[in-house]
Amino acid sequence: MTALSHVYPIGSRINALGHLEIGGCDATSLAAEFGTPAYFVVEDDLRARARAYVDGLATRHPNSDVLFASKAFPCTAVYRLLAEEGLACDVASGGELALALAGGFDPARIYLHGNAKSAEELRFAVSAGVGHVVLDSLDDCEALEAVAAELGVVQEVLIRVTPDVKGDTHAAISTGQADSKFGFGLAEAPTAIDKVLDTPHLKLVGLHCHIGSQLLELDPFRRAVAALATLGEFDVYNLGGGLGVAYQETQEPPSIADYVATLVETAHAELGAGKRLLIEPGRSLVANSTVTLYTVQTVKRNVSTWVDGGMSDNLRPMLYDSKYEAALAGRMNATGGELCILAGKHCESGDVIARDVELSEPRRGDIVVTPATGAYGYAMANNYTGVPRPPVVFVSGGNAHVVVRRESYEDLTARDV
Amino acid sequence: MTALSHVYPIGSRINALGHLEIGGCDATSLAAEFGTPAYFVVEDDLRARARAYVDGLATRHPNSDVLFASKAFPCTAVYRLLAEEGLACDVASGGELALALAGGFDPARIYLHGNAKSAEELRFAVSAGVGHVVLDSLDDCEALEAVAAELGVVQEVLIRVTPDVKGDTHAAISTGQADSKFGFGLAEAPTAIDKVLDTPHLKLVGLHCHIGSQLLELDPFRRAVAALATLGEFDVYNLGGGLGVAYQETQEPPSIADYVATLVETAHAELGAGKRLLIEPGRSLVANSTVTLYTVQTVKRNVSTWVDGGMSDNLRPMLYDSKYEAALAGRMNATGGELCILAGKHCESGDVIARDVELSEPRRGDIVVTPATGAYGYAMANNYTGVPRPPVVFVSGGNAHVVVRRESYEDLTARDV
Repeated sequence: MTALSHVYPIGSRINALGHLEIGGCDATSLAAEFGTPAYFVVEDDLRARARAYVDGLATRHPNSDVLFASKAFPCTAVYRLLAEEGLACDVASGGELALALAGGFDPARIYLHGNAKSAEELRFAVSAGVGHVVLDSLDDCEALEAVAAELGVVQEVLIRVTPDVKGDTHAAISTGQADSKFGFGLAEAPTAIDKVLDTPHLKLVGLHCHIGSQLLELDPFRRAVAALATLGEFDVYNLGGGLGVAYQETQEPPSIADYVATLVETAHAELGAGKRLLIEPGRSLVANSTVTLYTVQTVKRNVSTWVDGGMSDNLRPMLYDSKYEAALAGRMNATGGELCILAGKHCESGDVIARDVELSEPRRGDIVVTPATGAYGYAMANNYTGVPRPPVVFVSGGNAHVVVRRESYEDLTARDV
Repeated sequence: MTALSHVYPIGSRINALGHLEIGGCDATSLAAEFGTPAYFVVEDDLRARARAYVDGLATRHPNSDVLFASKAFPCTAVYRLLAEEGLACDVASGGELALALAGGFDPARIYLHGNAKSAEELRFAVSAGVGHVVLDSLDDCEALEAVAAELGVVQEVLIRVTPDVKGDTHAAISTGQADSKFGFGLAEAPTAIDKVLDTPHLKLVGLHCHIGSQLLELDPFRRAVAALATLGEFDVYNLGGGLGVAYQETQEPPSIADYVATLVETAHAELGAGKRLLIEPGRSLVANSTVTLYTVQTVKRNVSTWVDGGMSDNLRPMLYDSKYEAALAGRMNATGGELCILAGKHCESGDVIARDVELSEPRRGDIVVTPATGAYGYAMANNYTGVPRPPVVFVSGGNAHVVVRRESYEDLTARDV
């Protein structure tokens, strides 16, 4: 039995047949039963990471909460599982709020984000009784005041601050630099704080920052907390998310425990020990819980392998030049593979899942696995080239069940009038 | 009344109120009636471009057909309108085939593409009676033979050739270079031709090439046809699509008439006058027919304007660094605007619709128009950040009606099990 890369879900192994096993199930059997492409979520992995966050933060700083940054995997069953594990939830739109409520989160533990919230979204959130709203701009402040006044409530809010800390990540997902579209710069924040304090139906309880995603070093987080400390004292600090994950075997992100310890130590040093601390993991909760299985449809010129999915189920390679591993789920021990371009079925040259994966003699019908697809796969799924979106299947203890069914051709015309 | 850029749908103007008018309707009234974000398709524009293609090709070369490359705008109502205008259709998946049939295309005038067709897709296409299948690889050839034999039919096919002509476009949508994932290179094509000729349930009727999208010069098309001519004589030649469009006022693509004239002249010179010619316009049929209307939600630091849509309704700026124009639909004559970053509502810094558009004192509630969003907007729409997908509204002669309704929050959980 060969050891698998830590990129795969916890508990994955290569079984006696040389097949990938996840959540106690043979991946080739999963592909046969549920079809491909499909997202397979290993429940035990998701629960283990959720517990690492919840326990890791609570033991170091009891006055705290872990919010699922749900834009990473906005699927009702994922919300439900993480609500069961005791997390709170951050939502970035009315749609995510509807999903979090459907997933069973207590509205008081749902927190609304968004750089361009509509009046309808604000009304929905305030009416639902969300815990607080994170204000992103002066327009946002005025719009929320109008809604809170209309509904006759005082709404708790945080102010989002852009701490002028740039993490080392792709520009599209870096959010903490001074010219970010999100939040108030350090120079503008005092004015925003004064304005919110003067706004009758808003109650300012704290500050929020989020410096970006997929960060593999801890120092930027320390600098962001230090920047927040310059803005005065508040009861609540939401330190955002951003911890990176391993998409490839060579990547070694900080552990959840080390990340949480760093945040808590820095918060104690910079903000004091008596504050309420919130954190918002998304990618680092869900990415490695999930693998996508595809079926090879065409092998060309020996080094190019085309499968039955692609940019409709995983946009990240095209959007961020993200790298993924890939393997033949039915021949995990095969050696002597050639470097392949693994590409999708979409009518576009850019539709490449991975440019340099080693596959050993791939052929039509083989099952290909790409691990670490839990974050921003389902979230950005689309119907490009008329391709129905894949199902989401939960796998645990040798059993598997569909939580989101595969889209059908009929679904593609469901909104036709 | 000010002249509008040719980027807008044919017949657009600025009305007496200084508002954008499309298809005889005031754009701000359309936004009020149908909400934002929404795609508005000007039927007369779409019909005019369809007729330019159909008449332009038929008058120059009667033994021909114009195929709608439907991946550009795979919406039932668009299929239906173009079927009414006498076009045939190219589909690149089972889903697009289902849509083309729903839109009323005669199966015999539907042609199946795809670099990674599944057995199910091939079975669907052959059973439906598609005109021909375009073969992309040897695996594709074997898979189609198996399906045709199983169904007891002889299926007409074309072979896709990669003519080693590189058009000047974004790498993700360039398809004609020798290492493209599509088709057979010139060196491999003779072997593929021999193999298909020896395959009992396939009848080879011709060759196909498509060198890429959004091409603004005609010379690469000439070179591609010349390359096809080196492979022997066939009855049918599909010369693909790829004619570029104006996304910005400064762009002046060749006219449909000039493009068609060039293709026909080159085909006559290189292939002879007696061949059946097919062409596959997509973007150049649909892009400029459509505008997207958004509502401003937040204006920040005076030069940044955030609206209620973004990368969920238009991925092209992020995928290809595509440029779009934008204007305030209710103040089209306003001058003295500042250069704005127009960004979307998605929780991501990369979610920018246009980086340098001139808007005059934009404020919350203003309607923003981005023209030329008919191609690959709806096609790649997604639910990122839980945002429901916009409706498609047809506009003509001062009237407007919904052809695809707006997605609801309930729709986001429709596939939950």
